[in-house]
Amino acid sequence: MQGTAQPTSQATAYTPTDRTVPTRSAERASYDKELVHAILDEGYVCHLGFVRDGAPVVLPTLYGRVGDRLYVHGSTGSRPLRMTGQADPGLPVCLTVTHVDALILARSAFHHSINYRSVVVHGIAHDVTDPEEKRAALDALVDHVVPGRAADSRPANKKELAATAVIRLDLDEVSAKLRTGGVNDEPEDLSLPHWAGVVPLRKGYETPVADGDLTPGIGLPDYLAVP
Amino acid sequence: MQGTAQPTSQATAYTPTDRTVPTRSAERASYDKELVHAILDEGYVCHLGFVRDGAPVVLPTLYGRVGDRLYVHGSTGSRPLRMTGQADPGLPVCLTVTHVDALILARSAFHHSINYRSVVVHGIAHDVTDPEEKRAALDALVDHVVPGRAADSRPANKKELAATAVIRLDLDEVSAKLRTGGVNDEPEDLSLPHWAGVVPLRKGYETPVADGDLTPGIGLPDYLAVP
Repeated sequence: MQGTAQPTSQATAYTPTDRTVPTRSAERASYDKELVHAILDEGYVCHLGFVRDGAPVVLPTLYGRVGDRLYVHGSTGSRPLRMTGQADPGLPVCLTVTHVDALILARSAFHHSINYRSVVVHGIAHDVTDPEEKRAALDALVDHVVPGRAADSRPANKKELAATAVIRLDLDEVSAKLRTGGVNDEPEDLSLPHWAGVVPLRKGYETPVADGDLTPGIGLPDYLAVP
Repeated sequence: MQGTAQPTSQATAYTPTDRTVPTRSAERASYDKELVHAILDEGYVCHLGFVRDGAPVVLPTLYGRVGDRLYVHGSTGSRPLRMTGQADPGLPVCLTVTHVDALILARSAFHHSINYRSVVVHGIAHDVTDPEEKRAALDALVDHVVPGRAADSRPANKKELAATAVIRLDLDEVSAKLRTGGVNDEPEDLSLPHWAGVVPLRKGYETPVADGDLTPGIGLPDYLAVP
């Protein structure tokens, strides 16, 4: 299981670098591992950036986390995965995950904002070739969508594994950025006749809809119970 | 009002280019303007990609749309905005907006997926210097968060305008990509003992929370009424 061993670093925070220290609103930045992992684990898609022919490309894609490693998968024919396999020593990427938690309606247009939590990861993506690591990454990708689901589905067969490329990005140069709290209007604007406040966005999911071909007697699994 | 005139193109679809034709799942791609605009208008943040020192950077940010133009704003000191102002003829960017609509739980790990709608825009971002266009862009940014809100807030004053940079990205090289529908399991997997179906994600917002300093008598505006 060498390929799936978790990184053993015991540090509780990532080390800031020139790229991960924001030029503004620095008070909103964090390098805390627990916070970074929590933001990553709550997301469904990341936005993966890479450079192609000198221009930036940003694509949404599913991802999974195993310790301090992120995994992205796709068809072996997809562009960033093919580029990673061909690049030596790998493909420079930037992987970003963002949650919008609330809309901030201030009395002034200028102070309108959103409450958000984001994680930005800079690094080099590497093709995963070790079969054990690849299997563990695919499990992590499924469990990322719904925790506990990988064990309750048919694992990829040989043909499916061969058609799927997986790339790894180590969590090393990482930062979180977040805005929380309420409206920050200028004192002289407080008496203006405009409603001001916080509009929280809805989270979670609606009632699951079973597939029409579901074998009778298979109930909704516990991991899908709406809290 | 020259600066805020809407593009006059009457085409109903964007022209596909090498960058906007996907290498896989091409049946999920669309260039329909109405669909692209609808996906863009529903989002809160975009993910803006650019190249810095040869490496990709992807940052979440608010945006607004006026016809076939997108606008992004920020502090005049923020990196991508400063880079756009300094670049000639502008900064190559990729701007992506993604909605996750539902989780697709298949019986096989391989066919797990999500229903999503995304728009990817490639182009050159330009600094907006025309004062009228800048004001219209800032209104569009506020109205993008909550339609109708710009008219019900204090417009930016001279100092705030000076502190805010706005960049424009024309909708020209654009594509949408989407997955809809249900589970696509292999026929031989249909009898497996795993629950399968669609898990729709919650949309919209919770009850707005008024600012503690709100002047008594100001009720919740109509544009915030939860349907």
